[in-house]
Amino acid sequence: MLSSLKRLIIGRPLRTEQLQEEKLPIWKALPILSSDALSSVAYGTEQILHVLAPIGVLALWYSLPISGAIIGLLTLLILSYRQIIHEYPGGGGAYIVSTDNLGWFAGLIAGASLLIDYTLTVAVSVSAGTDAITSAFPVLHNHSTLISVFFVLLLMILNLRGLRESGTIFSFPTYLFILGMLGLVLVGLGNVAVHGIPADVPPVTHTFPVGLTWFLLLRAFSSGCSALTGVEAISNATPAFRKPETKNAARTLALLGLLLAVLFGGTSMLAYLYHITPSPTETVLSQIAEETFGRTLPYYYIQGTTALILILAANTAFAGFPLLASIMAKDKFMPRMFASRGDRLNFSNGIIVLALAAIGLIVAFEGEVERLIPLYAIGVFLSFTLSQTGMVVRRWKQRNPGWMRKLAINAAGAVVSFIVLLIFAVTKFTEGAWIVVLVIPVFIFAFYQVRKHYEAVAEELRIDIATDKPEKKDHVIIIPVGGISRVVRNTIAYAKTIGDDVVAIHVAFTEEDAEKMEKKWEQWNPGVRLVVTRSRFRSVNGPVLRFIDMVQERVGDNLITVLIPEFIPRRWWQRFLHNQSALWLRFLLLLRKDVIVSTVPFHLRK
Amino acid sequence: MLSSLKRLIIGRPLRTEQLQEEKLPIWKALPILSSDALSSVAYGTEQILHVLAPIGVLALWYSLPISGAIIGLLTLLILSYRQIIHEYPGGGGAYIVSTDNLGWFAGLIAGASLLIDYTLTVAVSVSAGTDAITSAFPVLHNHSTLISVFFVLLLMILNLRGLRESGTIFSFPTYLFILGMLGLVLVGLGNVAVHGIPADVPPVTHTFPVGLTWFLLLRAFSSGCSALTGVEAISNATPAFRKPETKNAARTLALLGLLLAVLFGGTSMLAYLYHITPSPTETVLSQIAEETFGRTLPYYYIQGTTALILILAANTAFAGFPLLASIMAKDKFMPRMFASRGDRLNFSNGIIVLALAAIGLIVAFEGEVERLIPLYAIGVFLSFTLSQTGMVVRRWKQRNPGWMRKLAINAAGAVVSFIVLLIFAVTKFTEGAWIVVLVIPVFIFAFYQVRKHYEAVAEELRIDIATDKPEKKDHVIIIPVGGISRVVRNTIAYAKTIGDDVVAIHVAFTEEDAEKMEKKWEQWNPGVRLVVTRSRFRSVNGPVLRFIDMVQERVGDNLITVLIPEFIPRRWWQRFLHNQSALWLRFLLLLRKDVIVSTVPFHLRK
Repeated sequence: MLSSLKRLIIGRPLRTEQLQEEKLPIWKALPILSSDALSSVAYGTEQILHVLAPIGVLALWYSLPISGAIIGLLTLLILSYRQIIHEYPGGGGAYIVSTDNLGWFAGLIAGASLLIDYTLTVAVSVSAGTDAITSAFPVLHNHSTLISVFFVLLLMILNLRGLRESGTIFSFPTYLFILGMLGLVLVGLGNVAVHGIPADVPPVTHTFPVGLTWFLLLRAFSSGCSALTGVEAISNATPAFRKPETKNAARTLALLGLLLAVLFGGTSMLAYLYHITPSPTETVLSQIAEETFGRTLPYYYIQGTTALILILAANTAFAGFPLLASIMAKDKFMPRMFASRGDRLNFSNGIIVLALAAIGLIVAFEGEVERLIPLYAIGVFLSFTLSQTGMVVRRWKQRNPGWMRKLAINAAGAVVSFIVLLIFAVTKFTEGAWIVVLVIPVFIFAFYQVRKHYEAVAEELRIDIATDKPEKKDHVIIIPVGGISRVVRNTIAYAKTIGDDVVAIHVAFTEEDAEKMEKKWEQWNPGVRLVVTRSRFRSVNGPVLRFIDMVQERVGDNLITVLIPEFIPRRWWQRFLHNQSALWLRFLLLLRKDVIVSTVPFHLRK
Repeated sequence: MLSSLKRLIIGRPLRTEQLQEEKLPIWKALPILSSDALSSVAYGTEQILHVLAPIGVLALWYSLPISGAIIGLLTLLILSYRQIIHEYPGGGGAYIVSTDNLGWFAGLIAGASLLIDYTLTVAVSVSAGTDAITSAFPVLHNHSTLISVFFVLLLMILNLRGLRESGTIFSFPTYLFILGMLGLVLVGLGNVAVHGIPADVPPVTHTFPVGLTWFLLLRAFSSGCSALTGVEAISNATPAFRKPETKNAARTLALLGLLLAVLFGGTSMLAYLYHITPSPTETVLSQIAEETFGRTLPYYYIQGTTALILILAANTAFAGFPLLASIMAKDKFMPRMFASRGDRLNFSNGIIVLALAAIGLIVAFEGEVERLIPLYAIGVFLSFTLSQTGMVVRRWKQRNPGWMRKLAINAAGAVVSFIVLLIFAVTKFTEGAWIVVLVIPVFIFAFYQVRKHYEAVAEELRIDIATDKPEKKDHVIIIPVGGISRVVRNTIAYAKTIGDDVVAIHVAFTEEDAEKMEKKWEQWNPGVRLVVTRSRFRSVNGPVLRFIDMVQERVGDNLITVLIPEFIPRRWWQRFLHNQSALWLRFLLLLRKDVIVSTVPFHLRK
């Protein structure tokens, strides 16, 4: 029954041969690989305004230079990642690039950051997607956590089924979103061009208004950098492109950079011109769309495609997390279960763990995007820094023709990413970044412990097949019996089958019972010795364990088998009607060395 | 660790010989056996007023004749139960008396009613006790459910430890309560005698005020009958009395009747004179005490002793429920676990089940006494009716000298109890009594099913010790192996020890792996055949199960043993690092007949 339910939800198992990758043309790769990056537009501007708006209307103007700086950073990152594409045509995730060039330790830092970030991608994107929905339909606002959890579970199930076959369908939402956002930016700026700048536009200042400090400005900048998350996705997936892979991937990356710059810049500009400030019940993007179109069809189109692309962005983490976990599991840094493919050929354990972790975050932070953001981008920029530093080292080691220019680009990327990382760590530390700063070392410690354990186990289990052969041993069989019945007869028959040295033990609670049992056993004469012990504490397991200890002491290195007679009722609920002492005894015996426990089942027919 | 925690909470185990009953003198039996009945005074009057007060001030007077009728009913019950004491000196609970005289079916109805009522006694008494506390300290009012749950858990732990030794201590609260209540009634009525009847006493009417109907009057009467719950406790416990048991028990019962009549009548009288109406935040008894003493020390004394005796009343159910459950378990109508004594010689399973059920009720009804009452007294009066009817039948069958007078008393008790039962069922049906009316048949059905199962099992397990001897059989041993390692060597060594026909099975995911394994096995040559099967679905268990099927078909009735190699890591968390496929395979195999599964453990040292 359980397995047919599983089949209904997950689908029927696939054969190993069916594992093959579809090669993507640019038009299909762009939407699939860049939904994470593009969707950040939905919350990037809002995060800047969250810092500036409380200071006052005079601070709002600063959102424009900050957005400019972020677009500059974006350009540098795009250039750096194009380098990685050419250098790692097999896919250059931060874990691989760092391990390859900077060693295991750097690789593990990158791995930890990425696993955390994939989880946060799901939590942030799904929460932001839910915000887009509740902005359009305020009546849903109070249920946003529940809606987010529902979406995560939906993504989990879809991914457990395997999503590849529906790849084409998944490219539509991204194009619809791009189209809608370009329309919004054009119509919005066009309106301003035609009707002139609105009257209440926040004034431009060149001195700091009261309350604005460099610290707050940097914090606003680092919050805005959440718009850059996801730009590394294309360079991770180079082998998925149609030939020529590297060229196509590089082109797609450039295209992504251009789109991201236009949409993010346009959104920030419109937010400024419309004098929009963040609200707890409506997103900044929703306010911009409402200001531009009113609550008409185009408004709902923007909200709908925003929600869709955000959910899709979360979906990219459902591809990335399990893949990275499987690579790290193969390197023995993570539990082996992450490396095994499920019925539908995906890494199902990774998918489930990611979903549960994301749900945990959403519930803990009540699905509030601005509270999740401080945890988010720190890992992203940590992995950016490590990748770029790795590339610098690589360039230096190889010194191929033209290496100096390339090294310079990567070095610039590394330095700038590192600076942003520092800004992040400092300005967001008390708001939640400390959690990540704390968790990464814990993860790295865990990775090492896991590897150490696997190596120790492998060492201990290894045998020399030339000399190390299994040998027959002597053994004693012990059967705890509660009385004389078919179950006991059945167990003794089995005991006689597997050995000659068999002894039964009975625990009596009163002297009278003890004598009765001894007498009845003698009459029955099953060909097996019986030892009767007395228990004044009405406990069976204690005396049985003590008897086994005694036997173990006497036989030394010989094997001891404990056969537990057990009858199995026909229906599951009937189990509650019988003492589960057999189960408990087995559990206690499993902790002992050199004792083999076996339950000899007797299946009831009625 | 778990077992030392258990020892800390429950205490060290006791020996079976330590089981002995202390014989009670009257002065000690009265408080211990009548706390349930006496404590009902704390809510009896309030339940009457709950029905009358909403009708208006003119209806309040009717609380007096209703209380009078209830005291009349009490007198009749006391007389009837004195009969049971003399007839059943071994203890005459409704289950025993009904089974004995009316047959199994009547006994089971009584058993079901009593089990339900014990549970409700805990829920109602603890909730009312909490009300007494929150009336005195209103700040606690919002936490009443939590406080009630805490008290139930406390009672559970105390009872699991075994309470007998502290019996004397438990008699104080009852005496303190009796003293306080007598004082309250005397001072209250004395005040009225000295200062005259208060000005705002509700007027006496002889016609029904608007809104009052016979139906409501009967409902008020049946609510007030909740004050009579617990009067049967003394007759259940006759053998616990000091000699002459029956005489002492009968005396104690008479004493209880007198006290109950005085306290209940006095409380109802004062509530009427003071014109008190029920309040959601303060009990009627608390209002009476406040009116009489003000919020002075005597007020807090009344509230404190009321809370204490109510908790104590709940405690009587913790003695009654497990005892009844154990009797019914010995009669095979309830799961066997209820009949076995725990470490401290008490029926620990009954104690735990009672506590959990009572907590369930308290949480479901938010600890509101007036919502629990409709469920309560129906079972009490059902068991009263059955006991008394049983006695009528017994008198008729025996017809000893003077039987007619005795039969008349029991018949009157039976008829009146039955009428009250009908009134209850009708007037309270929609308020919750339907739950009990529904649950009792379900319980009875379950009792029969349990008995049927035990009888079928006993029948199926019975053997003829003269002819039915265990015989040695042929058997095949199958070992699923994942590779060649110490764990596998260990398992094969064991297999060779227990039999000669051993076969290993390996599941390979690719053709390449299959050939590699076959070759390596040949080199190793452990003296055991290897069968390699291919799985294209990356599942190990499926092919192993199919192989076992195949072998089973070939060997027919012979035994099959499956030995699962398993290594056990040194620390529990390390288990997560290894696939638990052995566990799953064992589970799947446990469902099969004629296959014995054994895990051969290999304990890792590192």
